[in-house]
Amino acid sequence: MIASVLTIGDEILIGQIVDTNSAWIAQKLNEIGIRVCAKISAADTQNSIVDALNFAKQKSDLIIITGGLGATKDDITKKTLAGYFDLELYFHQETYDRMHGFFAKVGRTVSEMNRNSCYMPYDAIILNNEKGLAPAIWIEKENKIFISLPGVPFEMKHLLEDKVFPKLKLVAHISPIVHRTILTAGEGETQIAEKLGDFENILPSHIKLAYLPTLGTVRLRLTALGESEEVLEKELDFFEKQLLDTLGDLVYGFGENNLPNAIGTILKNKKLTLGTVESCTGGNIARLITLNPGASTYYFGSIVSYHNSVKTNLLQVDENELIQNGAVSESTVIAMVKGGLTKIGVDIVVATSGIMGPDGGSELKPVGTAWIAVGNSENIVAKKIFMNRGRDINIEYTSIVALNMLRKFLLEA
Amino acid sequence: MIASVLTIGDEILIGQIVDTNSAWIAQKLNEIGIRVCAKISAADTQNSIVDALNFAKQKSDLIIITGGLGATKDDITKKTLAGYFDLELYFHQETYDRMHGFFAKVGRTVSEMNRNSCYMPYDAIILNNEKGLAPAIWIEKENKIFISLPGVPFEMKHLLEDKVFPKLKLVAHISPIVHRTILTAGEGETQIAEKLGDFENILPSHIKLAYLPTLGTVRLRLTALGESEEVLEKELDFFEKQLLDTLGDLVYGFGENNLPNAIGTILKNKKLTLGTVESCTGGNIARLITLNPGASTYYFGSIVSYHNSVKTNLLQVDENELIQNGAVSESTVIAMVKGGLTKIGVDIVVATSGIMGPDGGSELKPVGTAWIAVGNSENIVAKKIFMNRGRDINIEYTSIVALNMLRKFLLEA
Repeated sequence: MIASVLTIGDEILIGQIVDTNSAWIAQKLNEIGIRVCAKISAADTQNSIVDALNFAKQKSDLIIITGGLGATKDDITKKTLAGYFDLELYFHQETYDRMHGFFAKVGRTVSEMNRNSCYMPYDAIILNNEKGLAPAIWIEKENKIFISLPGVPFEMKHLLEDKVFPKLKLVAHISPIVHRTILTAGEGETQIAEKLGDFENILPSHIKLAYLPTLGTVRLRLTALGESEEVLEKELDFFEKQLLDTLGDLVYGFGENNLPNAIGTILKNKKLTLGTVESCTGGNIARLITLNPGASTYYFGSIVSYHNSVKTNLLQVDENELIQNGAVSESTVIAMVKGGLTKIGVDIVVATSGIMGPDGGSELKPVGTAWIAVGNSENIVAKKIFMNRGRDINIEYTSIVALNMLRKFLLEA
Repeated sequence: MIASVLTIGDEILIGQIVDTNSAWIAQKLNEIGIRVCAKISAADTQNSIVDALNFAKQKSDLIIITGGLGATKDDITKKTLAGYFDLELYFHQETYDRMHGFFAKVGRTVSEMNRNSCYMPYDAIILNNEKGLAPAIWIEKENKIFISLPGVPFEMKHLLEDKVFPKLKLVAHISPIVHRTILTAGEGETQIAEKLGDFENILPSHIKLAYLPTLGTVRLRLTALGESEEVLEKELDFFEKQLLDTLGDLVYGFGENNLPNAIGTILKNKKLTLGTVESCTGGNIARLITLNPGASTYYFGSIVSYHNSVKTNLLQVDENELIQNGAVSESTVIAMVKGGLTKIGVDIVVATSGIMGPDGGSELKPVGTAWIAVGNSENIVAKKIFMNRGRDINIEYTSIVALNMLRKFLLEA
């Protein structure tokens, strides 16, 4: 089965928003073995949508459409689809009842405009939206499936995963497909590929390995296509184990996990508490850790010592050493760890100090240089790193490397 | 002039990357008065690209193509374009010389694969890439302009802004267009639109006002289309002043500025220093401030008091009050400001404490509740806010509201 994704909305064509929906949809379709051959964004006009539908249906069996279903936008997508297939619209009582119930809960009544949005095309299958007002509309015509979804990301995701995919698996012939995602940190794509040369040679042709690099981490995805899900799971068990044995402690997690959350699990298991002391990363490591719910069980907090006076006064970094070696130095980050252990009152601290740019670099310490230290009351390790690809990327990279140093330290602690 | 944007790459169609290029291109084209009627993403195959070209040229005079120009990808875009217009390829010495010079600088030689990428279609105009290897290729055929750019964002942006736009302005009739962007924080789109009712009524039809809302802030863009840039600038001076008079202190800046940077300017002018004390925002406010270069001149640092022990031990929040009122309370955030003023040693502190979810809420303090306080040694103000749209959005929203409270406090300080 081959699909096209059609996103509708003037806001996409004036560049006011980045279309993240279509990337998410493409990823999910690929995961269930449906290849996406094209993505099209069309304006909020009938002509635009019709042109895009004509283009999409020439190339694909499944056309996923998002956007243009809101009551405020005159339902241009629904009307256009109905016109395109010559389908009358009828009042869909169930959608109205759901809407009425939803509004009643928040003490509002259904406006005329909202009531008008409850008309649906004859012959279409209506899939209820549990997270919003506009349902998904499923139309089968010309041996193809057209599915119209609202553009609000969390409604679209809910409808696609919970309503559309189960139905799609019933009506379409989709070969079983099984994925495993293995998360690594500490080496680049090329170094990992070198380590996995032998592994890739023994992989059978129905199992693919994809490298998905992001800043400081690489996700590896094993995808197996076949006839029996059970057989594929067993095969992946085998190959995943081979892969894990080869990569050792480069692997920090699986699936949708993230590096600070994986660190949190180690900390909880070892009953250890964590603090951070950040200069150049300016609170970004704290942010990455606390984006995970429940971080307060192991993470106590951070001292963002951006100005040197905070380093000397609050963290008691020795002023003479600071002047002598500079804020971006091994001695400073080690002193920052020591200060953090006492002041935050935790078992382990990670500290950063660097020059993130665009100014402030020197010949000895160019923009992009950072020192990172991690340690406990017994042992502190420090490392100098370098990455200069713009201030925001330098900050993010330094944060990820610091988190990974922390992870490695914990594995040995 | 009407344009289509065509992005090429399997990585877009498997959802591995979000296509941010096309949104950026659409925005820039709109800014110079070129409407984008469609965006298409095609796979790295000749058929896919040809289908997309056929679709795009039916609808537009200008087709901007990105991606598929790298040497590693077999130059599928360039070969396909050459084939599409029946143009032979020839060895483009200048591109080779530039590549040779680029590699020589980093001590590398030009590989066979790289040399092969120096062939260009006859009849095409080659625009040199100052930031990378692949130049832009400009082809005029069938009364339309086709422009092929590399997909690497900073190379694409450079070529479009520095090479393509100046040339486009010469050959195409593009009416002068002038923009002003006014940045506001503190009110939603609807409230601002209500305030601007009279203003919008007096706006002449060749000047448009667009609302570009993001979390906690709204950008307002005035766009004037006409025959003389000088006249338009004068008109916009007048209308911008009207708008500023109406909105008063909702306006925090102009153009590409951001809220923490605008706050930095006030702090520098008033010679004041700033610290932050964050619980629920977990370092995100510190991060937003320190993403701006030069923040260390006014920003000293943050104490991220995620765990209550940091609030009581380091910030000396009264333990009894904390237990009695809870961490998410007026008394706690006020005490956090006081602790921050002393411990960080600054003139002004902003503090946050809230429940960001998904768990931890109660009937009295549901998920999404946050207390914010800002103050100096003489005066502290506090406010309770509420927003529940998922943990990451709750954190970002609380951060932006806190920064805006700080800005308002500074304006009156």
